[in-house]
Amino acid sequence: MPELTETLNDGQQRVQAALDQVLPDPALTPSRLHEAMRYAALTPGKRLRPFLVYQAGALFGETGAVLDAPACAVEMIHAYSLIHDDLPAMDDDDLRRGQPTCHRAFDEATAILAGDALQALAFRLLAEPGLLDAGRRIRMVEELARAVGSRGMAGGQAMDLAAVGRQPDIAELEDMHIHKTGALILASLRLGALCAPHALEADAQAALDRFGHCIGLAFQVQDDILDVTGDANHTGKTSGADARRDKITYPGLIGLEESRRFAAELRDEAMDALTRFGQAGDTLRSLADYIIQRDH
Amino acid sequence: MPELTETLNDGQQRVQAALDQVLPDPALTPSRLHEAMRYAALTPGKRLRPFLVYQAGALFGETGAVLDAPACAVEMIHAYSLIHDDLPAMDDDDLRRGQPTCHRAFDEATAILAGDALQALAFRLLAEPGLLDAGRRIRMVEELARAVGSRGMAGGQAMDLAAVGRQPDIAELEDMHIHKTGALILASLRLGALCAPHALEADAQAALDRFGHCIGLAFQVQDDILDVTGDANHTGKTSGADARRDKITYPGLIGLEESRRFAAELRDEAMDALTRFGQAGDTLRSLADYIIQRDH
Repeated sequence: MPELTETLNDGQQRVQAALDQVLPDPALTPSRLHEAMRYAALTPGKRLRPFLVYQAGALFGETGAVLDAPACAVEMIHAYSLIHDDLPAMDDDDLRRGQPTCHRAFDEATAILAGDALQALAFRLLAEPGLLDAGRRIRMVEELARAVGSRGMAGGQAMDLAAVGRQPDIAELEDMHIHKTGALILASLRLGALCAPHALEADAQAALDRFGHCIGLAFQVQDDILDVTGDANHTGKTSGADARRDKITYPGLIGLEESRRFAAELRDEAMDALTRFGQAGDTLRSLADYIIQRDH
Repeated sequence: MPELTETLNDGQQRVQAALDQVLPDPALTPSRLHEAMRYAALTPGKRLRPFLVYQAGALFGETGAVLDAPACAVEMIHAYSLIHDDLPAMDDDDLRRGQPTCHRAFDEATAILAGDALQALAFRLLAEPGLLDAGRRIRMVEELARAVGSRGMAGGQAMDLAAVGRQPDIAELEDMHIHKTGALILASLRLGALCAPHALEADAQAALDRFGHCIGLAFQVQDDILDVTGDANHTGKTSGADARRDKITYPGLIGLEESRRFAAELRDEAMDALTRFGQAGDTLRSLADYIIQRDH
């Protein structure tokens, strides 16, 4: 997928430049907090969520600067969630994106506050007067707030912690992932679509949501597969960390082969959801392939 | 101040009922997270910030249900900040409002997530379609996001931690408090005023902001005084905790008498700011007195 790689790189560079602009200057007080926010949000990553904002915008005819605020907002939320998930009281991780985790590079208190402040900054970015009318800005805030709260991402992390050492069934595991990672992935697509010149028809919205649901879950299944088979040099994380932590994973619950089959099924359903968009959906099609073929 | 006590009680009951309605049902998954959010936000407290929302609304002619969403939002933000400030990596407190702190009553991971989810819920409440137009809802989101981020409340907490064991001067101490508690107090008044039927004139806004600045700082000076002189049975906190933790306080820096004089000065300036509002400002006048006379 040479073309997708190029589009992914373009998106990464675009959001990196935008993040660099909107993150607080470390010369401003409190410097250490600002450094920690920048460290966590600017360390290179896949930038999947901003990519989804840009691509959902493009799918409905919008490619302009209006997409940068939501692209930064979803990445900041993602960065905040990684900082907090990595804390000693949660997953207690030392390595993230091949670098020391935020609380290792700084300290625990700074890491907690950097996460808190990144969440606030994400909402501020969406709310500030810019290129969109107030009506659509407030819908973006509402969408994001719903996706990251106790019935979304934060709730998913709580469900994940509650499952450690227990033996949840596949339905519970899926429910956890739909909240923990799926909600923000879905919100990223919706925020991009909200920037489009025209409101989406109901069936286009439903198709986009179905696509988001499938790739969100496929992404997580592949993450679990990589935790077993992956190389820490590629993933930037400690291999087998989930298994050692007694976390239930798809390979742990249904085996590696069945996990791969499930990921492929989700890819197929994601492709099916894109049918109505014709050629305009080609980049998202390549993305669905990439998600289950990636090695990091 | 028997009348103020009654008005405070009314506000407490009003916001308590509203919070009870908007906080997630503990019967919903993830239950433990929802219980922790309710525990932290519903434990009775002074409810100063919701009171400011209600009173700023009333000052400009609005007393209706439209004030309940911002009143709940500022209290949720306050509750989240207390949960995170009390964590072992921060102030490591066992007692809050006379009850075990959230991480003591639950566990650290749940406490971190409860704070995170309360922040998200605050923004969701402000964003949801309700009694206000989108233009004013988005201004409330922007105002609150600015007040709680790295250049507001979260930044103030970082400045507080950075000052432990050092000897900051009075200007640094004031700057820290303006961020840590002042920004949210100011935002509470502004959110209430944003609910009023008419936009504020510039000088009314400036007077309200000056009042907020003064009572915010007076509140903190009195808090420091109570940390030295207070009775844990009244404050619901451990007496002398700040001093033992090597935190710089006003009495520690300028002495108890000078601190009392400074608090009284701030009260006088707050009263002065209210002049333009005539009789309509009487409740806020009583509040300025209460803030420096309270024993908890």
